[in-house]
Amino acid sequence: MNSKTNLVKTDQSDPYSPQLYDLEAVLLMRDNGVNVVGIGYTIYLGSEYEAQMMMEAGDLIAQAHAEGLIVVLWIYPRGKAVKDEKAADLIAGAAGVALCLGADFVKVNPPSPTDNATSAELLKQASAASGRCGLVCAGGSTVDAQTFLSQLYDQIHIGGACGNATGRNIHQRSLDEAARLTKAISAITFDDATVEEALAIFNG
Amino acid sequence: MNSKTNLVKTDQSDPYSPQLYDLEAVLLMRDNGVNVVGIGYTIYLGSEYEAQMMMEAGDLIAQAHAEGLIVVLWIYPRGKAVKDEKAADLIAGAAGVALCLGADFVKVNPPSPTDNATSAELLKQASAASGRCGLVCAGGSTVDAQTFLSQLYDQIHIGGACGNATGRNIHQRSLDEAARLTKAISAITFDDATVEEALAIFNG
Amino acid sequence: MNSKTNLVKTDQSDPYSPQLYDLEAVLLMRDNGVNVVGIGYTIYLGSEYEAQMMMEAGDLIAQAHAEGLIVVLWIYPRGKAVKDEKAADLIAGAAGVALCLGADFVKVNPPSPTDNATSAELLKQASAASGRCGLVCAGGSTVDAQTFLSQLYDQIHIGGACGNATGRNIHQRSLDEAARLTKAISAITFDDATVEEALAIFNG
Amino acid sequence: MNSKTNLVKTDQSDPYSPQLYDLEAVLLMRDNGVNVVGIGYTIYLGSEYEAQMMMEAGDLIAQAHAEGLIVVLWIYPRGKAVKDEKAADLIAGAAGVALCLGADFVKVNPPSPTDNATSAELLKQASAASGRCGLVCAGGSTVDAQTFLSQLYDQIHIGGACGNATGRNIHQRSLDEAARLTKAISAITFDDATVEEALAIFNG
Amino acid sequence: MNSKTNLVKTDQSDPYSPQLYDLEAVLLMRDNGVNVVGIGYTIYLGSEYEAQMMMEAGDLIAQAHAEGLIVVLWIYPRGKAVKDEKAADLIAGAAGVALCLGADFVKVNPPSPTDNATSAELLKQASAASGRCGLVCAGGSTVDAQTFLSQLYDQIHIGGACGNATGRNIHQRSLDEAARLTKAISAITFDDATVEEALAIFNG
Repeated sequence: MNSKTNLVKTDQSDPYSPQLYDLEAVLLMRDNGVNVVGIGYTIYLGSEYEAQMMMEAGDLIAQAHAEGLIVVLWIYPRGKAVKDEKAADLIAGAAGVALCLGADFVKVNPPSPTDNATSAELLKQASAASGRCGLVCAGGSTVDAQTFLSQLYDQIHIGGACGNATGRNIHQRSLDEAARLTKAISAITFDDATVEEALAIFNG
Repeated sequence: MNSKTNLVKTDQSDPYSPQLYDLEAVLLMRDNGVNVVGIGYTIYLGSEYEAQMMMEAGDLIAQAHAEGLIVVLWIYPRGKAVKDEKAADLIAGAAGVALCLGADFVKVNPPSPTDNATSAELLKQASAASGRCGLVCAGGSTVDAQTFLSQLYDQIHIGGACGNATGRNIHQRSLDEAARLTKAISAITFDDATVEEALAIFNG
Repeated sequence: MNSKTNLVKTDQSDPYSPQLYDLEAVLLMRDNGVNVVGIGYTIYLGSEYEAQMMMEAGDLIAQAHAEGLIVVLWIYPRGKAVKDEKAADLIAGAAGVALCLGADFVKVNPPSPTDNATSAELLKQASAASGRCGLVCAGGSTVDAQTFLSQLYDQIHIGGACGNATGRNIHQRSLDEAARLTKAISAITFDDATVEEALAIFNG
Repeated sequence: MNSKTNLVKTDQSDPYSPQLYDLEAVLLMRDNGVNVVGIGYTIYLGSEYEAQMMMEAGDLIAQAHAEGLIVVLWIYPRGKAVKDEKAADLIAGAAGVALCLGADFVKVNPPSPTDNATSAELLKQASAASGRCGLVCAGGSTVDAQTFLSQLYDQIHIGGACGNATGRNIHQRSLDEAARLTKAISAITFDDATVEEALAIFNG
Repeated sequence: MNSKTNLVKTDQSDPYSPQLYDLEAVLLMRDNGVNVVGIGYTIYLGSEYEAQMMMEAGDLIAQAHAEGLIVVLWIYPRGKAVKDEKAADLIAGAAGVALCLGADFVKVNPPSPTDNATSAELLKQASAASGRCGLVCAGGSTVDAQTFLSQLYDQIHIGGACGNATGRNIHQRSLDEAARLTKAISAITFDDATVEEALAIFNG
């Protein structure tokens, strides 16, 4: 429901991603046969415009639920006030905000690992904070399939994620490779496959 | 009805906690069986965004009362213009604003004690200012049960509070301990118990 | 209809007093038996937020008159651009703005006296500028009854005021004294009493 | 439909004149017998608030025309970005904006004369730019009748104005003199009188 | 649907072009017989006011399509954050934004040529990004007919444009010359003419 370019950087102005359509426009598409089952909205917590985005998200969630639509929030701590966007406690705070706002799913960045804990271990705090709001991690920049599938496995089995939200790792691959990776992701997420089993699916 | 993160500090930008839902969304929940009896809203008096929050609160109070809902205001003096957030006269001013806005209850911080007066004695000014709007104090950070119950007793019997609004002193205890503390609080608030009697209830 | 605290000073931010309720909330009270005959709104001319307050006032006046309610404006020149808030020409300008906005009454501060003219003499310009919009002066800080009643007499008989708007000079007195002062004020305002006659009433 | 004081100067904040009433309030007056035939709005082009005023004007013009009302725009280039408010090309740009916005009449300041051209000659560019939107000049500060009538004659016959919009040159004269000047203005504007003929009317 | 003057420069304030009318005003014209088939809106990507313009554009597109109107977006990267307004990747980004917003056509500036590629070659990236949203280039400042027609031919046949959006190259020519240039443009755009054939049409 909202979007922005990355032309204006945070040192010039804190990020604000404006709502571009009202829900009525979405419902009109659904009324005309587009199979819309949910909407998404991005919040930059810690931005000086956090308030505007929380208002828009809150309002959209109430409206969407009344119309039978689910809501996914992308929540990224970002702004002059945010020193480390991937600190585990900020990621957990973002997950908690999603729960408080009533979102159905929240997409967060995987926490940066520390000397004492892996990213997946640190993600536990976030999935606890998100409660009944399902947590998924951003796929990030493109990596080899084994790395990707291992991370996903750990996010789900250690970190408590309920899936993932992958972009570049799919659309920056060939169609054939992307299709096989999608099947491997599905195997881990829905069929309880191990990394090795998923990798075998990927390798066809 | 409103909320914010604490990522942006006052020295970067004065606090503004945006309204996240309109009353219609609340009424929809009530219509669907959730037993909603009131709403709450936080105002930071002395913030450069005070005006926005007073507007939202004023409007919500008028709407909520028309729908048979009570309204609790959390009012905290905060912002670059506020040197001492817990000065007794500012707390009293906050209580008076709640009355003027037509709130049913106001939650304030207990005033800082001075050389001449305890916090509970200083609270008298605030409970006088809040008039028929019931005044309760924030519970603050977790302390031992005796300290907590003594403060509560004094807030009610000396300071004129009509109850309390406690978070961390409950949810940072074990379930069992929290349940016993809740009973002790209830005894002081509703059954006119002494601190000793309440402590006996807590100690089970 | 609007209000603010005095925590944020003009050197930090120019004053803005936000509208806290819409007229509908007022009409609802009237419909439920409260004898509401008018509304009031405060404008700080010369504030960087003057535009916002003039908009809200203009809109409220049109709405209120359509519903048979009178409107009183408090207009005070205030803000970084205003060097002398009680200069006679600014007070007169404030009175003229009230007329242009269509207010029924305007409350202004009495002008500061100059070497050549008393406050009441300087007020003539303001009452001329306010035209058919009735002008009243703020009562200011508490003074002895004789001083107060003399000022009031001069404001009406020399300055062209049609009454007064007194707060502290009433509510900072004992109930008995306040009642007698109210009668004295009434005698000057409605019964054409002299200062001596009014003082006799006050002295009971 | 909009107005402002002149207390806040351009070096403190660029000018913004807020809309004080919506068209509904005007239509209500017309419905109640006031012979309203049009509305007016002032735009300060080059102000940092230009966008806000162009929005309000554009919206009002569409609404007013739908209700059979004509619209007059006062357009003055003003703000930190404007070095010479009476430069002929800026005046012409202002006239062109009025046409684009769909105004029926535009009031501009007469351009400052240059070494090569009189004000009236320079006004040609503006009246060409205003197209079917009638252009009138502000009357400016009070001058003697001959000067005023000569300027008016030249604005119409050389500059392409279709009339004038005079304030101070009328209301700063005695009633009798103002009435005679009005007749003289009418003679030039509607009856194609020469300056001498108009002056004879003024001299009665 | 939106417009602005160029008086306030980017170093004073980032560009914002406000929406001047709502769609209802456009529909009213259509209802009254004006053959309106579409609307246009200008977005300055990279401006600090990008959010406001993307919101207005997004909302207008949803509304316009629901009413059977097509939408053309003019998208120009501009603001303090934009170092090179005609960099090919920014132009392509602009085209992609138009597609995402659901516009039917997008008008962009032709990219600046580099050492390795002509403007038309660089335009390929933009027309790929605009997808099913038709891309046209701004005509720019007036050049001789052969230059203009060659550029147009290359924009269509190399760069993937589906037409052009020419202003000054038409209206800054005589009526006769403008008519002949229009026919030449039409021949290239709709009849697959070569530059030589189009030039022959222009030369009559």
